[in-house]
Amino acid sequence: MSLLAFHDAIPGYLEDRDDQLWVRLAVYGLQPDALYVRIEPDNEEYLVPMVADGHQGTWHFYTALIDKSQHIEQTEYLFKLVWSQGSSWLGAAGVEPHMPRNIHMYRYSHDRRLPTWSGAQVFYQVFPERFAQGDAHLKPQPGEYRYLNRTDIVIKQWGDEPDPRTGGFEFFGGDLIGVYNKLDYLQQRLGVTALYLNPVFESQSSHKYDTVDYFNVDPHFGGNRALQQLIEGIHLRGMRVVLDAVINHTSALHPWFQAALAGDARQRAKYVFGVDNEYASWKNHHSLPTLDFANADVQADMITGPDSVIRHWLQAPYNIDGWRMDVIHMIGEGPGAKNNAHYVRTLRAVIKAENSEALLLGEHFFEASSWLQGDQEDCAMNYFGFGHPVRAFLAGLDIAHHPIELSATQFARWLREARARISFDHQLLQFNQLDSHDTPRFLTMVQNDRALLQVAIGFLMTYIGTPCLYYGTEIGLVGAQDPDCRRCFPWDERQWDNELLDFCQRWIGYRKAFTALSAGALIDLYAEQDAMVFARISDHEQCLIVLNRGAACELQFELNLPGSDAPWQRVDADGDLQMIGLDCQVGAPDKSLQLWSRQISANDSVAART
Amino acid sequence: MSLLAFHDAIPGYLEDRDDQLWVRLAVYGLQPDALYVRIEPDNEEYLVPMVADGHQGTWHFYTALIDKSQHIEQTEYLFKLVWSQGSSWLGAAGVEPHMPRNIHMYRYSHDRRLPTWSGAQVFYQVFPERFAQGDAHLKPQPGEYRYLNRTDIVIKQWGDEPDPRTGGFEFFGGDLIGVYNKLDYLQQRLGVTALYLNPVFESQSSHKYDTVDYFNVDPHFGGNRALQQLIEGIHLRGMRVVLDAVINHTSALHPWFQAALAGDARQRAKYVFGVDNEYASWKNHHSLPTLDFANADVQADMITGPDSVIRHWLQAPYNIDGWRMDVIHMIGEGPGAKNNAHYVRTLRAVIKAENSEALLLGEHFFEASSWLQGDQEDCAMNYFGFGHPVRAFLAGLDIAHHPIELSATQFARWLREARARISFDHQLLQFNQLDSHDTPRFLTMVQNDRALLQVAIGFLMTYIGTPCLYYGTEIGLVGAQDPDCRRCFPWDERQWDNELLDFCQRWIGYRKAFTALSAGALIDLYAEQDAMVFARISDHEQCLIVLNRGAACELQFELNLPGSDAPWQRVDADGDLQMIGLDCQVGAPDKSLQLWSRQISANDSVAART
Repeated sequence: MSLLAFHDAIPGYLEDRDDQLWVRLAVYGLQPDALYVRIEPDNEEYLVPMVADGHQGTWHFYTALIDKSQHIEQTEYLFKLVWSQGSSWLGAAGVEPHMPRNIHMYRYSHDRRLPTWSGAQVFYQVFPERFAQGDAHLKPQPGEYRYLNRTDIVIKQWGDEPDPRTGGFEFFGGDLIGVYNKLDYLQQRLGVTALYLNPVFESQSSHKYDTVDYFNVDPHFGGNRALQQLIEGIHLRGMRVVLDAVINHTSALHPWFQAALAGDARQRAKYVFGVDNEYASWKNHHSLPTLDFANADVQADMITGPDSVIRHWLQAPYNIDGWRMDVIHMIGEGPGAKNNAHYVRTLRAVIKAENSEALLLGEHFFEASSWLQGDQEDCAMNYFGFGHPVRAFLAGLDIAHHPIELSATQFARWLREARARISFDHQLLQFNQLDSHDTPRFLTMVQNDRALLQVAIGFLMTYIGTPCLYYGTEIGLVGAQDPDCRRCFPWDERQWDNELLDFCQRWIGYRKAFTALSAGALIDLYAEQDAMVFARISDHEQCLIVLNRGAACELQFELNLPGSDAPWQRVDADGDLQMIGLDCQVGAPDKSLQLWSRQISANDSVAART
Repeated sequence: MSLLAFHDAIPGYLEDRDDQLWVRLAVYGLQPDALYVRIEPDNEEYLVPMVADGHQGTWHFYTALIDKSQHIEQTEYLFKLVWSQGSSWLGAAGVEPHMPRNIHMYRYSHDRRLPTWSGAQVFYQVFPERFAQGDAHLKPQPGEYRYLNRTDIVIKQWGDEPDPRTGGFEFFGGDLIGVYNKLDYLQQRLGVTALYLNPVFESQSSHKYDTVDYFNVDPHFGGNRALQQLIEGIHLRGMRVVLDAVINHTSALHPWFQAALAGDARQRAKYVFGVDNEYASWKNHHSLPTLDFANADVQADMITGPDSVIRHWLQAPYNIDGWRMDVIHMIGEGPGAKNNAHYVRTLRAVIKAENSEALLLGEHFFEASSWLQGDQEDCAMNYFGFGHPVRAFLAGLDIAHHPIELSATQFARWLREARARISFDHQLLQFNQLDSHDTPRFLTMVQNDRALLQVAIGFLMTYIGTPCLYYGTEIGLVGAQDPDCRRCFPWDERQWDNELLDFCQRWIGYRKAFTALSAGALIDLYAEQDAMVFARISDHEQCLIVLNRGAACELQFELNLPGSDAPWQRVDADGDLQMIGLDCQVGAPDKSLQLWSRQISANDSVAART
């Protein structure tokens, strides 16, 4: 039995009514004999009959009121449709021929503390030591200190290439004043609206993931005054900023750990010591001793205390807009991640108590679904549900730089399955990046094929989730694995790819102009071989995205989105979309992305398709 | 890229070595350039290279030592195979073209308290009021009491049909002495090895899911003395017995609730009262008030106290072998299931403290995966991963009696996905039933088609998990939905289907004779339209099961299980298996199940196929 039915968490399909949810289902074609919403409000199954609620053309609508779950932070539900000859189930991963597993139930998050601002942003990630120099006097001096008391730091000229042998202790002179000076460029030339900064607190390294002092910005970055000035500048422009917290471990040079080594029992209890001064450390890097969150001092100093690290920077005068939590899944008791969920829940409670609109972004190189069920994170660095599949599909590489072959069909299924495990509200906040300070740059991964990079950037700006560009992507900066991906931003514009910058500005503009792109549901329409088509739909507009990574081809697919009879307009160029009945024909040039849109009236917004 | 690779938790493929696991992978055909085991011992990914470890014909073996996870009760892992042109991932749901989601990682349970006896049993479920009468004097008398103080109980003759209008308070006179008297029949004629009894504790109803006294067996069943005698008889025969605990709620007639209604504050605090003596009850049945596990008295009385209900019957003189926990997923704080996992973990700790070999079997009408991750249950009533799919495939009905159409391909995938979420050790313990006191009888669901029932029974005895026959199935008892499925066992043998009984005895015998059926890995070989073929393999034998629900057909499938060149022997009949190279041809008569086997030497046991 083929089934065309649609439900997703867009306006008109779901309403929160205190202890209940009102849900709607649209069914196209042969209508079922009975429809139910299946819920588990106390872990037990209940089938709630749906009632007919009008139609629009051949789309018929059904609605029901369901009880919210009381024992968890979200309501999980799916739809059952019964015909005389069989049944179908519609869940978050699509139509299934039998009761889906729990992982494929729709999820509605009850959490009223998800930031309302975050999903509408276009983020820009800044690696402060390499983005811009604002005050040359701040730059570390040759011989100023020995890294880990062992190795002279290396001082290089802006634009020199990073060296893997000295990656962690070579300095080019970027600072926060430099970032401040570039805010106009970021906001006006490029168009981004929020910054995510790699760590800025005092540390001997250039990446600063080995914190020595959580309460002071590194003096080479300009100290606390420079951070305060930067944040004020950001907020004055209506922009936002998220900082990077590294609390799973400290630097071995942190005063706590130095005191621990010297025999201070209280400080020693914060770490995980074995015999002979052996201690647990992050991935066995001895310079990064692991904190033991079973220790009350660690909990208080980092999270729960009145002037904890987490609270401190959320408060005035800094008022940061959120935290990106480094290796958040590893935080726990003892050497490992024991009771991790408990500490992440505590982290959530503390952050939201300071500012219910503050963002809690978790770093996960892999699947983060279990941290995104309403009780822990607002969103994750979406390597698993965005970065990995896009890299695999467009660059043929997996995250370990192994070759991977992926058809558009497999690509679309991967994306869909990753989405299915989390609520729509969490999907909108997922932090999508093509690359970062921890991966090769995307342009390098696609072997400098700018057309493929543009496809990727366009996809980033049109896919569900919050886009973040890694600094320098927009002007064509290249770089292989860390530290090569942390090259200095070339402020000599003659080194820029201005066409690429224009492209980025344009697609960032589309992202901001169409709320369907930042807040709309995602509808898969076509995915075969090299090409994929999907729609983003909100209550007043629909966007259509046609992506082709391969040779030019003609695509034909059913475009049954009944919200409107309005014609589609090509947004990013001239173009022509042919409709023959419900079939759409469109030419897809080689390595291309197209954006189409149409406005719909509120009355038409009740129906769509998956 | 096609990949034929095999790993499963059978001897020779996995060894527990204290803090590490030794794992083996078998790869057929084109060998990869690199192989890795992917683990997350502290939630962070590590890729552990595998090393070549010999070959057998064209199967090549690779091994690795991996670290166990320290922060959870199981180690999760999967395999990554890299060729020059691409990569493949092998997880518990099969080969995937990209990194699988966490749900499809293999799971190895660290728990050393899983019962070692349970997986080898063939269980038999007894509904005591309807199985056998041992002492006619125990039978309730007409007018003896009014059910819920409202309605006269109904006394009927053995063999009368149950009446839906009086189902809960009509009595036919079964008792525990009757069960005792039939132990020889059960052990010697039928061949089952363990009993699961529906509730036996004092209660006004015939089903006794509304407990009035948790410390006394209902006098109409013979009281505590009859239970003690029954258990001693069971244990003397080397058999086992599991009782049914209903602690989510009590009867409204339980002294606690009566005292609560009368204003006793301490008793009142055990329940969830609202205004005007309103209270929470199981699915809004007012006769079943919900216990609030946030209450310390409830926790102690039911689970944690020195003479808690749970402890009491595990101790001498009763020494029951385990608990089946009614609606275990609903147990929690307040009216719902809040903090359910915490209480189930506590339940596990208490049960295992009394007897580490005691079984903790949870009732779940739907998916129980999250209760089977090593920290909560030993096994679940496997409706989701066995009963539902078998009913759908063979009877065309889902659990709500709606029609469902399922091909063998979809059936096999459903079974596989259900298995994939839990460890191999948990898969072996899953409690598989075709039907129960809560469902129509299977023979009735297949409209009295005995051939289909036999296919189902044979499948029950050969599939992975612990089989349990519902009383009367073996002699052809029929019955629709509760209470019709609770008819009296007809002890007049002229009413028996003796051919069916012989069939059951024979297939129970195969189950016990072939340890591959109770302890072996399951390998899917073929699943299309009406037919399915799978193997169960252990270190010394392999079984092949050919199932056909439809018309007679010829099946052809690759049978690449290199453990042996020994020929296959038909177990249940004469038969002929034709092999042409790796291709197997076999005729499958209509509505049939076949069992084949071969012995293999220990040296040959290292390789198999999925």
